[in-house]
Amino acid sequence: MGEIEARLERMNLSLFPAFKFPKPNRRGCTRVGDIIYLSGHGALGLNVPGLRLHGKLGFDMTTEEGYAVARIVAVKILSTLKQELGDLDRITQIVRLFGMVNSAPDFHHMPAVIDGASDVFYELFGPERGCHARTAIGVATLPHGSAVEINGEFRVEG
Amino acid sequence: MGEIEARLERMNLSLFPAFKFPKPNRRGCTRVGDIIYLSGHGALGLNVPGLRLHGKLGFDMTTEEGYAVARIVAVKILSTLKQELGDLDRITQIVRLFGMVNSAPDFHHMPAVIDGASDVFYELFGPERGCHARTAIGVATLPHGSAVEINGEFRVEG
Amino acid sequence: MGEIEARLERMNLSLFPAFKFPKPNRRGCTRVGDIIYLSGHGALGLNVPGLRLHGKLGFDMTTEEGYAVARIVAVKILSTLKQELGDLDRITQIVRLFGMVNSAPDFHHMPAVIDGASDVFYELFGPERGCHARTAIGVATLPHGSAVEINGEFRVEG
Repeated sequence: MGEIEARLERMNLSLFPAFKFPKPNRRGCTRVGDIIYLSGHGALGLNVPGLRLHGKLGFDMTTEEGYAVARIVAVKILSTLKQELGDLDRITQIVRLFGMVNSAPDFHHMPAVIDGASDVFYELFGPERGCHARTAIGVATLPHGSAVEINGEFRVEG
Repeated sequence: MGEIEARLERMNLSLFPAFKFPKPNRRGCTRVGDIIYLSGHGALGLNVPGLRLHGKLGFDMTTEEGYAVARIVAVKILSTLKQELGDLDRITQIVRLFGMVNSAPDFHHMPAVIDGASDVFYELFGPERGCHARTAIGVATLPHGSAVEINGEFRVEG
Repeated sequence: MGEIEARLERMNLSLFPAFKFPKPNRRGCTRVGDIIYLSGHGALGLNVPGLRLHGKLGFDMTTEEGYAVARIVAVKILSTLKQELGDLDRITQIVRLFGMVNSAPDFHHMPAVIDGASDVFYELFGPERGCHARTAIGVATLPHGSAVEINGEFRVEG
């Protein structure tokens, strides 16, 4: 087990099984050179006991609940990257995250929600590799009513 | 005529004339190295007999109608790439699509809508070059009321 | 002072002080090779006398007011790039902008709003370096109620 996965375990977080796409037209990420282009990752297909993953922030879900969803979405992203790379230690930089929050039109705290994912990446990869560019916006609706969806770019080696 | 354009013709799809931008400040795509960065492509400027291109999913447009719009937007994207590259066979990888669906707040089937574009790319380019990363979200509104808008990244050679 | 900064001054625009992020997990941009990946930039932290930076287009803000906000957001982006690069003349291409407009569901003029930023980049960098790929969409809500948020990719040298 690599260093990043060992840290993840110490944070009591576990990788998910590979997501099974309904059609062969798309997958969780693609790679060109040293850049991984990530698909949007949401709550679809996840089941975390005691955690509500679907909802609309500012309507039926609190910022704290949204933070917890973003944390789980970060783990789902790492699960895709593990499947692609074999070893998460090959990630040399969290380049950029694009966080989309399922939001009521008057909800403004998207950055505090997406921090759930940013904090996981920062804690795992440290200030050099983990501090990333980021966008956090509110969107009208997300697939299957997921509270959060995140895509992004990652730099990898090997 | 290249192989991809021949396939497009067999699918009874035809490239559109070049979109004329209202100001010189932007264009349909830019290129850095082997990556094409695509502008958002929607229904603006298109006229397809018998096909409604403007509307809001979950309000006045069905998922099937949205799928048909996404299919046409894929052809519009290919028209931009043809203009940029001269030959669509120079596209070596559909890297990633970002699909935005003009959605009512309770519409959840954005992936089924954006499949209209993903299916075109997959059918044209096959599993090796055509299977891509993707995000599909619902947005409050799109330019000129288009039902779908898509941008993305493409790998090219030559 | 470099050529781009001199032009900015002639346009009566001034760079802003560096934005102070609330947590160390993210920053204004990251760089991989010759590509700068930009974070979402909105009105947060800005104060421009006589200019309203927060609002929802099609509800309590006009297209002209939104254009003025997008113009200021472009200057904020240039401020981040100046801090990263030291000299704005090192920007060799405005590759792509992703413009998000805080919009009522029936507002359709997002391109005219985001032109506020596109026009600044085009005027500063000229047709060769300044003409960019772009997406302009309407989103349900933005952090702290900003009227506009923009991220993107930039090519740099040195």
